[in-house]
Amino acid sequence: MEFLVRVDGADVYDLPDDEATALIEKERERGRELMEDGIIQDFWRIPGKPVNIGIWSASDVDALEEALTSLPVWSYADIDVTPLASHPMTE
Amino acid sequence: MEFLVRVDGADVYDLPDDEATALIEKERERGRELMEDGIIQDFWRIPGKPVNIGIWSASDVDALEEALTSLPVWSYADIDVTPLASHPMTE
Amino acid sequence: MEFLVRVDGADVYDLPDDEATALIEKERERGRELMEDGIIQDFWRIPGKPVNIGIWSASDVDALEEALTSLPVWSYADIDVTPLASHPMTE
Amino acid sequence: MEFLVRVDGADVYDLPDDEATALIEKERERGRELMEDGIIQDFWRIPGKPVNIGIWSASDVDALEEALTSLPVWSYADIDVTPLASHPMTE
Amino acid sequence: MEFLVRVDGADVYDLPDDEATALIEKERERGRELMEDGIIQDFWRIPGKPVNIGIWSASDVDALEEALTSLPVWSYADIDVTPLASHPMTE
Amino acid sequence: MEFLVRVDGADVYDLPDDEATALIEKERERGRELMEDGIIQDFWRIPGKPVNIGIWSASDVDALEEALTSLPVWSYADIDVTPLASHPMTE
Amino acid sequence: MEFLVRVDGADVYDLPDDEATALIEKERERGRELMEDGIIQDFWRIPGKPVNIGIWSASDVDALEEALTSLPVWSYADIDVTPLASHPMTE
Amino acid sequence: MEFLVRVDGADVYDLPDDEATALIEKERERGRELMEDGIIQDFWRIPGKPVNIGIWSASDVDALEEALTSLPVWSYADIDVTPLASHPMTE
Amino acid sequence: MEFLVRVDGADVYDLPDDEATALIEKERERGRELMEDGIIQDFWRIPGKPVNIGIWSASDVDALEEALTSLPVWSYADIDVTPLASHPMTE
Amino acid sequence: MEFLVRVDGADVYDLPDDEATALIEKERERGRELMEDGIIQDFWRIPGKPVNIGIWSASDVDALEEALTSLPVWSYADIDVTPLASHPMTE
Repeated sequence: MEFLVRVDGADVYDLPDDEATALIEKERERGRELMEDGIIQDFWRIPGKPVNIGIWSASDVDALEEALTSLPVWSYADIDVTPLASHPMTE
Repeated sequence: MEFLVRVDGADVYDLPDDEATALIEKERERGRELMEDGIIQDFWRIPGKPVNIGIWSASDVDALEEALTSLPVWSYADIDVTPLASHPMTE
Repeated sequence: MEFLVRVDGADVYDLPDDEATALIEKERERGRELMEDGIIQDFWRIPGKPVNIGIWSASDVDALEEALTSLPVWSYADIDVTPLASHPMTE
Repeated sequence: MEFLVRVDGADVYDLPDDEATALIEKERERGRELMEDGIIQDFWRIPGKPVNIGIWSASDVDALEEALTSLPVWSYADIDVTPLASHPMTE
Repeated sequence: MEFLVRVDGADVYDLPDDEATALIEKERERGRELMEDGIIQDFWRIPGKPVNIGIWSASDVDALEEALTSLPVWSYADIDVTPLASHPMTE
Repeated sequence: MEFLVRVDGADVYDLPDDEATALIEKERERGRELMEDGIIQDFWRIPGKPVNIGIWSASDVDALEEALTSLPVWSYADIDVTPLASHPMTE
Repeated sequence: MEFLVRVDGADVYDLPDDEATALIEKERERGRELMEDGIIQDFWRIPGKPVNIGIWSASDVDALEEALTSLPVWSYADIDVTPLASHPMTE
Repeated sequence: MEFLVRVDGADVYDLPDDEATALIEKERERGRELMEDGIIQDFWRIPGKPVNIGIWSASDVDALEEALTSLPVWSYADIDVTPLASHPMTE
Repeated sequence: MEFLVRVDGADVYDLPDDEATALIEKERERGRELMEDGIIQDFWRIPGKPVNIGIWSASDVDALEEALTSLPVWSYADIDVTPLASHPMTE
Repeated sequence: MEFLVRVDGADVYDLPDDEATALIEKERERGRELMEDGIIQDFWRIPGKPVNIGIWSASDVDALEEALTSLPVWSYADIDVTPLASHPMTE
């Protein structure tokens, strides 16, 4: 099952510089693991914004929620999830 | 997997009266089937509005989409789906 | 009488970590009591967000308000209440 | 139990003039009954708009919904309901 | 002349606890005076929110503004005023 | 008492051309009367839009409502009214 | 260069049934061509809505615009385009 | 004086095909004149939408309004105007 | 050329009391100068809000911007400007 | 490829005065470089707001993103990017 996930990390930049840097480093490490596990399938930056948007894959909503709450930025981020249904033309 | 589903049927009332009546009758018949199949678990009316809001259950998003597009009002309705994750306290 | 209640607890995470942890612990304790009392009937997490959404039952709006203001997170939370009318098909 | 009810009747004016006039006449008749029954307690016009806003009283949400769907303009109107809790200072 | 007045006091809860308590106490005292003077005619709580909504009466907008700026929470509150016209049916 | 009044007449242009022209002619005639009566004090066009915005003066909200419902475009227009309080600096 | 493209086709369902069916058939044919050309990379349905959301690839905005205006539903659809920048982690 | 002007022509496509085509032809003719007169300085399409956005120059707001109301699509278009001040760095 | 200008000064009240008082005093002094210069033609308070709304006159947008940035509250205020075109009926 | 870029720098004014001044100085220096490089083609101030809006040119979205993240105010600014397609009439 796939989801469109938008992660707005603007509040991370309200932290002191060194805390923000450390948090972003941890976030990227966790992001790499989620990519290796096939949970994050692809993602991009919204130009001009500390926001990424991606296609995530998970067996169900609980598995997605587990992945999202594992993000180090979780409590600073504003995350929006859109569930995606298969399109008849891509099956 | 559960979803909060909001179905706004206001556009049904733009149809001629007899077409609207026939469509609502078909919709209720299909609704009863979905309740019997355990897909619609519970639902309510928003007071004052031709809108219902319910808890739907489906194995995944594609199964939910199949149920939603089977609604006779589908092409007249404005439907919003919110995926629901289990809460740690209800497990 | 039933209500759809959405509780957004994002501001709890602006507290120092130990205060947030203690507050969430108290909140869960109170939540369990409200579930035992049949006031909270079911509730879920919105994936990616510190938000829960649930079906609450109370004899009237004042009883609901009393339950909501008894939540330890009340002054930090952004709470939205939608009253629910019975649907003709579920009676 | 009291509710703030906003009834936007703008779509009534999309009807042919004589149908609109007849509908408004029926609406006022039904309104007078609801006032006599103590369901509509007071109401006003929003200046410049075909909108009224009022304080309605009903034993519960289902009774309110029954009153609202009894309005002749119901299928043309856009109705918003806000439940009202007693304020500690007015008790 | 009557007005629908919505007072959102959420920012009061950002004050230290003792300041918030003292401010709310002063606010209630002033509220009682405005009720005795017939300026606040009735008011309610929006369930789940530190918000009240009421029917205020004043000879004109300047008299209303004078009453509103006399509220101790004025500089912390977000206040919305809707002017109300008499409805033909209530005259 | 003064009010900021915004009149959006876009729906007038959905009428057949000759009806729209006749309606606008009647509207201007009524507008001239309201200006002569000192009810409309000044008004402007929002550039690019069939919208005017003006300062209206009336003894109270009911008098304003009477003036607004006397506009020939009333049932086609979307009208927003903002009550204005005197500013301490202009008194 | 990649773009997130959301195509809302709700207005197609305001057409007579046979016109809508013919238009959707043409749209799918054109969609298949755009997939074969690698312009549409992947796309999904938003559950409950006549809306698809997809990842499109084009050499620049003009090439994307050319692809979008080639869609048979173009004049009936409400299309939103979000440009996507590469994320440092996916390079 | 320069203005950012956004012209949304979506309603043009609700006209019968031949009327829409004739109107767009007239619009382009008028557009060319406004470009030759230096009133429209530059403009672009928003990808996927029947919307253009441009930089217009006029001696004052009345001259801009005269240019905008001279557009053949004026009564079908939804036009937004943002006045632009010189930036200290570009002087 | 005239503009409708809305100045929301809510953030001024986040300053320490003495700083807010001093700033408001300076603001009023500057406001009086702008009134004497004929730049601010008239203005009002929005009841219940630390917001004023006025009719400003300036030779062009740059002159308006110069006046607005001369306001002592400029960096604390949220200011919205609507350009006004003459209405055919007031010429 | 051209983009409409809106940069809202309001949060810069939440910094201590000297930090804000130093940051704005650096921002202007970087802005001058981007103008010399032909990346910023033209830009303006929105009257009354610490916001600029401009036409930016870049070979693709990644080049635009690189320019935007090079702005010293990047982590304080709220930036919106609209991609622009050529208009058939300007080619």
